[in-house]
Parts: sequence; C-alpha cells; structure tokens
Amino acid sequence: MLDYFFNPKSVAIIGASDNKNKGGYSIIKNVTAGFKGKIYPVNKSYKEILGIPCYPDIASIPGDIDLAIYFIPSKELPDTINECAKKGVKGIIIESGGFTEAGEEGARLQKLALENATKAGIRLWGPNCMGFIDGNRTYVFSFINSLVWPDVLRGGSVGMIVQSGMLSAGFLLHALQEGIMGVSKVCSIGNKCDINESDILEYMINDKDTGVIACYLESLVDGRRFTSLAKTTKKPIIVLMGGRSQEGAKAAQSHTASLSGNYRVTSGAFRQAGIIEVLDPAELTDMARAFAKNMPFYPHPQKGTAILTFSGGAGTITTDLMEDCGLPLAKLSAETLASVAEFFPPWNKPDHPLDLWIAIERHGFEKVFRGSLTAVIKDPAVDSIIFHSYATPLIGQDFFEELTVLLKENKKPAVLWVEGRKDFAEHLRGLAENAGLPAYRELNRCVTVLNGMKRHFTKKPMT
Amino acid sequence: MLDYFFNPKSVAIIGASDNKNKGGYSIIKNVTAGFKGKIYPVNKSYKEILGIPCYPDIASIPGDIDLAIYFIPSKELPDTINECAKKGVKGIIIESGGFTEAGEEGARLQKLALENATKAGIRLWGPNCMGFIDGNRTYVFSFINSLVWPDVLRGGSVGMIVQSGMLSAGFLLHALQEGIMGVSKVCSIGNKCDINESDILEYMINDKDTGVIACYLESLVDGRRFTSLAKTTKKPIIVLMGGRSQEGAKAAQSHTASLSGNYRVTSGAFRQAGIIEVLDPAELTDMARAFAKNMPFYPHPQKGTAILTFSGGAGTITTDLMEDCGLPLAKLSAETLASVAEFFPPWNKPDHPLDLWIAIERHGFEKVFRGSLTAVIKDPAVDSIIFHSYATPLIGQDFFEELTVLLKENKKPAVLWVEGRKDFAEHLRGLAENAGLPAYRELNRCVTVLNGMKRHFTKKPMT
Repeated sequence: MLDYFFNPKSVAIIGASDNKNKGGYSIIKNVTAGFKGKIYPVNKSYKEILGIPCYPDIASIPGDIDLAIYFIPSKELPDTINECAKKGVKGIIIESGGFTEAGEEGARLQKLALENATKAGIRLWGPNCMGFIDGNRTYVFSFINSLVWPDVLRGGSVGMIVQSGMLSAGFLLHALQEGIMGVSKVCSIGNKCDINESDILEYMINDKDTGVIACYLESLVDGRRFTSLAKTTKKPIIVLMGGRSQEGAKAAQSHTASLSGNYRVTSGAFRQAGIIEVLDPAELTDMARAFAKNMPFYPHPQKGTAILTFSGGAGTITTDLMEDCGLPLAKLSAETLASVAEFFPPWNKPDHPLDLWIAIERHGFEKVFRGSLTAVIKDPAVDSIIFHSYATPLIGQDFFEELTVLLKENKKPAVLWVEGRKDFAEHLRGLAENAGLPAYRELNRCVTVLNGMKRHFTKKPMT
Repeated sequence: MLDYFFNPKSVAIIGASDNKNKGGYSIIKNVTAGFKGKIYPVNKSYKEILGIPCYPDIASIPGDIDLAIYFIPSKELPDTINECAKKGVKGIIIESGGFTEAGEEGARLQKLALENATKAGIRLWGPNCMGFIDGNRTYVFSFINSLVWPDVLRGGSVGMIVQSGMLSAGFLLHALQEGIMGVSKVCSIGNKCDINESDILEYMINDKDTGVIACYLESLVDGRRFTSLAKTTKKPIIVLMGGRSQEGAKAAQSHTASLSGNYRVTSGAFRQAGIIEVLDPAELTDMARAFAKNMPFYPHPQKGTAILTFSGGAGTITTDLMEDCGLPLAKLSAETLASVAEFFPPWNKPDHPLDLWIAIERHGFEKVFRGSLTAVIKDPAVDSIIFHSYATPLIGQDFFEELTVLLKENKKPAVLWVEGRKDFAEHLRGLAENAGLPAYRELNRCVTVLNGMKRHFTKKPMT
C-alpha cells in the first residue's frame, strides 16, 4: 500500500525546469540526488534537464510510470490526470497550490481532479504540499530548495506527517538543524484531497524504518480511523494539533481548508488512544528524538525521577516543573544517598535533587557523575534520570556512551540539560545525542519530554 | 547605598592565588580585566600575583579598602571580618561555601560572621555565591573561570539577581551565550545573610545602567519590602521563583537554606505589584531581552496582535498559543487586508493571520514584509506584531532596522520567530536583535514574551 509513492520504480516530474530560480528545477535536482530509478522530466520547453531527456507530455514518455510529481498551474490538473491514467500512473504528488485553499475555482478543480483520479484508480497526494523526503534513502520528492537540505538531512527512525506547506519545510529544517535528529520519512500532505493523515499513519505503523511518528495536523479526515490505528501500535505517536482554539481553527481553515472540529473531543480521543499531544513545533521534534533513542523504559506508578545536577537552583526549578506536570521526584534510599556521599566532604551531605557541585570540585565531573549514576540507577525507587551538565569541552562522547550503556542495562532512561557557553553546550549536546542520550537546551523541555515518555510507556509498556 | 560594592575604589582579594586551577586565581584574573582601582591580593604564600604585590593579611595592606572578596575556608570568616573592621572595609563579598547550607557548624560561622560585621558596620554579600559582574564596566568580581566569559560578556541594560551559586554562572552564560543580550549587573547573592534581593532590587531600581530587572529567587527575606519596591518603579521586574512546589521548596531549602513560604501568596503579591513571573531560566532571559529593546508599547484592551508569517501552519499554532494565554488576535480592517492583497494573486486573498508565502514567491521577502507591515502597523486594531521569518542569508540588518524604526514610530512592538537552517537562523536572529527586534527560536516563546510585555505595560503604561 502506497509503496508506489515511497518506493517507486520510476518518477515523472510534470513541470520540471532548467531555470534554477524555479521550484521545478529544485524538484528534479532533488530527485536526482538519491533516487536511482527512472526519472522523466516533463516540460514542452526543454529537450533535456540536468542531462536527462525531457518529454513534452506524459504520453511521450517511453517507459512505465509509478509516480508523477505535479508542479504546474492548478487549472491543468484534471486533464493531466486523464493523461496519467492512460499511461498507467499509480500515484501523483500534487505540489502546486491554487486549489481548495484558494477559493471556489480552486475547489472546483480539486473536486474534478479527484473524480478523474478515482475513476482511473490513481491515488492523489496533496495538493498544496511539499511532497516527502526519505532521510534513509535520500529521496527528496519536494520543491524544497536544493541548496538547503544536503548537508543537514540525516536518516533515522522519526516519521513526520505534516499538514502544512511551508511549515513542513520549516519542520524538516527545524528537525534537522541541530544535526541531531534522523528522519525516516517527512510527509507534507497539504489539502489531502485523497491521501490523508490516516493513510500515512497506517503506512508508517507498518514501515520498518519508522519507530516514532510525529504529526502536525490541522484537521482529521477520519478521526475514528486515526485513533483506531493509533491503538494498534506501540510506536509512539506525537501530535501537534493546529486550530485548537476558536481563532486558530479559523486560521487553519483558510490555510488548508480544514475544519478542525471540536478540539476537546479530539484531544480526549487522542488521550484514550495513547497519542501524545504537544503544543509547539519544537516540542514535537524534541519529544520525537527522545523516543527515537530507543531507551527502554518500564515506568512504575510508585517510582520517580532522580535529578543529578551541578546546580542546586536548576535542581529546584526542575523539581517545580516536574510537580507541575505530575512527575514524582524519586525517594532515594539511605543506601543510595550514602553511596553518593562518598564523593562529598564530611560537612556536606547530598540530598535529592543531587546537587553534585561540591563533589565535582573535589573529584571531577566524570568520576562524580559516573559514581552517582551507578548508585542512583540501582535504587528501586528510580525509574528515570534527569541530568544537568554545564558545558565543558573536557567530556567526550565515550563518557556519554558509558552512561547510556548503564541506563539501557538498567532499563531506566535519561534526558540531559546542558547549560553554559553556546559553543561548548552545542558540542556537548551533539556528543550526548550521538551516544544515545537526548539533550535539551531548556529545563522545561527535559521535564516535558520525560513526562511524555513516561505516559506513553505506562499505556503501552515494552514487552 | 551599596556603591562600595558596585563602584569600589579599592578591592582586596582574600584568598587570591597564583595557581591557575584555583578559584582564587580566577578572581584576581577577572578583577584585573576591567577594574581600574587599587587591587590588593591577600595570601601568605605569595609576594605577588600577576605582577601585583600580594599581602600576608588585611592589616598589611597599605591603602584604604572599600571592598573585600572572601575566598578562603568558612572557618576563618569571623576573625577575618574583625581584621577587615580594623582596616575600615565597607563591604565583603563572601564567595566561599561551607555556611548555613552546609550544616550546623556552617550556620554557627555564618551567624558569628554577621554579628561581627554588624558591630563593625560592614555589609556582607553572600556567602555561598559567585559575586557579581558588571557588563558595561567589565567588572568581574567572581571566581567564574576566567577563560569562559571574555568573548561573551556584553554590556547592556538587563540587571540580574540570582540566588544560586552555580546557576548564576549558568544564567550569565545562558544570557550571554547567544551573543544577543547585554547585562548591566549580574548579582549572585547566595545565602544572603545580610545583603538580600530587596537591597539589590532597590539599587537596580535607582541604577541608570539598569532598565530591566530579572531575578531567580528561592526565598524572599522580606516579601513586603520586595513587592513595595516593585510598585515604586516602571522598570519591568521579572521573577523566576524556585521552590514553588512542595518538593521544590524542600530542594531550595537544602540548596541555599531558604524557606520559600507559601508560594500562592507570594505569586498573588507579585501579580499585584506588577512583577512578571516566569517558569524557566530560558524564559527569564528571553523575556528580559525583549524588554531591554525599549520598544514603546501602549497596549489597549480593545486591540490585538497581528501575525505576519510565511507559514499558514505557524500562524495557526501561534493563534492557538495566543488564545491559551488570553492574547487577542487583532481584527484587521478591510482596508488593511486590501492593502496587503496588492501583493497577492487575484485567486488568493489574504486573511489574518497573514500567510504571506504566495506574495513572497511573487515579490520577494523584503518587499512583502515591508509593505504588509506598513499596512498593518497603521491599523488601529493592532497594538503589536508577531513576525515569522524563514532563515535566509538574503536579508541584512538594515532591513530589520527599517522595520524597527517603523515599529517604534508607531509605538507598536514586535517579536520575531526565525525557523530554518540553524546557521542561517542564528545569523538572522543576531541581525534582528542588533537592530532592536527581539528574536526567538520557538513559537511559544514569542507569545509568552509578548504576553509579558503587554501585561507589564497595561499595569505600568509608558508616559
């Protein structure tokens, strides 16, 4: 199902261009970057583009076509679909705008196009979308500027479904910009006249490359199907719903011609289906990359989170933020505290949150964090850890790998906050992420992410 | 008042060291960086440090001493204070730990030290703190590592009061790390055995270098005085309170021996005094630098915020987040929409939030943003603007300066969200900040910051 979109043998690009300022150039440039199947540019004005023979129309293409990418004005879509039908095209990604989102005439065109496609058994993706990107195969079936993505696209297990044109590019770049999140497939679904969020969700649930599914949606075509699908999988599904508010719903309607329905009902159904809701694009990607780390997590209602910090203040604030969202602070045993106390001077006993600064001054960062984690991780009252580190160039990736091994062995996940000089902090976050420890810039994000993980695995425990 | 701390003529450094691994070395290195008065290192082990004559004790110092920085073990403090008294020292910043936060013996020492100081009329700052930094004068009276701050410290109008040792370094570095916030004074007040948050607040209210006051506090020594002071000023005061929750309050107590009292009462009193509360360190500095831009803001209950975006999705999410915190979306007039429509194709009419992507594709980013802002800013329904920009290297600082002039002339402030490639995005945020437009990484932060500004200027309107 939908494999002719995600794994086509051949792709026609209707509206390919040799003009570097046009989106039709970006598409062919992008498709040729990683796609190894047949590529057929279609444009009356060219004999070839990027050295590839160009055809004046669909009919002239010599071979079979699995997938067509449509990037010419909206008014030509209904007829083009009929031409595609004659040629046996299976799916069309319509990246042009000018349909339902653009008024009556656009709506008429979209309706007619869908009728023609349905008759021919062609599935339509879009219109008014940016297509999709496969990070593992380097398939970039999108008009995203071909200068922008090559050095930031990274393969991984996060699948994204985004119902927004430009925002999907933004989402992708946001996700990629830190250089720390890998994506399986990022799908921009636009007006979703045919293929909708549930179709892609179903595909991603069955897709072995996808381990986590992150969505930005402004409407649900079939909310019941979406939540039913969610119930069938243990893969975390994280949703940012646009148009939650009255004014926001109006904005969503003019943007992708969506009606978001009653948000409270939707939100309740999400909760029942184990879908994790977030409120900001950055929260969506930050949450997704935590799940993508595949940290085993067996939360228990009686257990809590341990905080290992270099700053009493940061420990205090984190405790407050945890209580705000109902995450309990672990009640460390006397044995655990005694173990950690070995790093402390006699006049200062550790308490929880573990403010380790005095110990670090005496024994160094690595020794104290390693030793404290070793003690804390074995405490049966602890189900997860929040680390706070100051930014230092003196810690290497091997240290984070050592911590991550310890965490995974004990099936207790962790998140990291790094504070300090920007250059050091970014470097350190990168090392931690590469070692499998999700790292954040803000205290509250650590708490939100851990809360999301805990709630997910409480509903859908690992086996 | 307290000028001998902030503008001393001479500084003694008790515990100065020539050993680069010691905090006592960082202090003298830091003080010599910008302070032009007399510097007297005190340490029996050295004849001189960094070429400055070193004295075995306070009594041996030839000149008068306004300020002493104390960085030797806690047990020597009471006697040292008596020595300082004989020498006429006016204030002592105690940066060592080992006092109330470290148990009974520490508490005894702190009490005795305070008694000795009170008898002698010496004011004590700390103990258990990182001293202070003046960004405009480059006074770094702190043991913060002397390698860390020189290329990130930037002068400006944000004064910070931080009741936490390490976190104040973290706060400072966080504030500075983006290279976009300038500080007047960052004060780490630790256990505040004498000088407390209200003393510093009062100083900052009267300090011409300080325009915005941002605080992290774990307790209020005299809540009534703090809120009374806040009522006397129009300078924005932003507070992150640590220990809001039950568990957090316990953590705060072991950290700086604070009792945060009843948080709800505190929070209510803050609201009445026009103090802005935030929940995360990053929110504190992000809010502070918005106020530091000195954008004139005359909010009116009937007015709302306009959103200019390149992404319908981002516009929708922003509208949701605004409604979450009660910020109304402006009802743009038909004239305003008609003006903006000039950049749009006939088949697509702008609606609010203004999704400008189609117009940008036709006329370019600068022309569309300039033109749309010119229309929107004159709409009487608009009191503030949220911009969303994608990251592009094609926009220069002069463009943001042009926008800022327009905003200031019309007394309507704006915040900017930049999304996209990390390198481009950071560059663009830097340009915007330098031009006077506060720029953020997350949608929700734009909304939180604007909400804070609007609430502040509603209570304390500009004259």
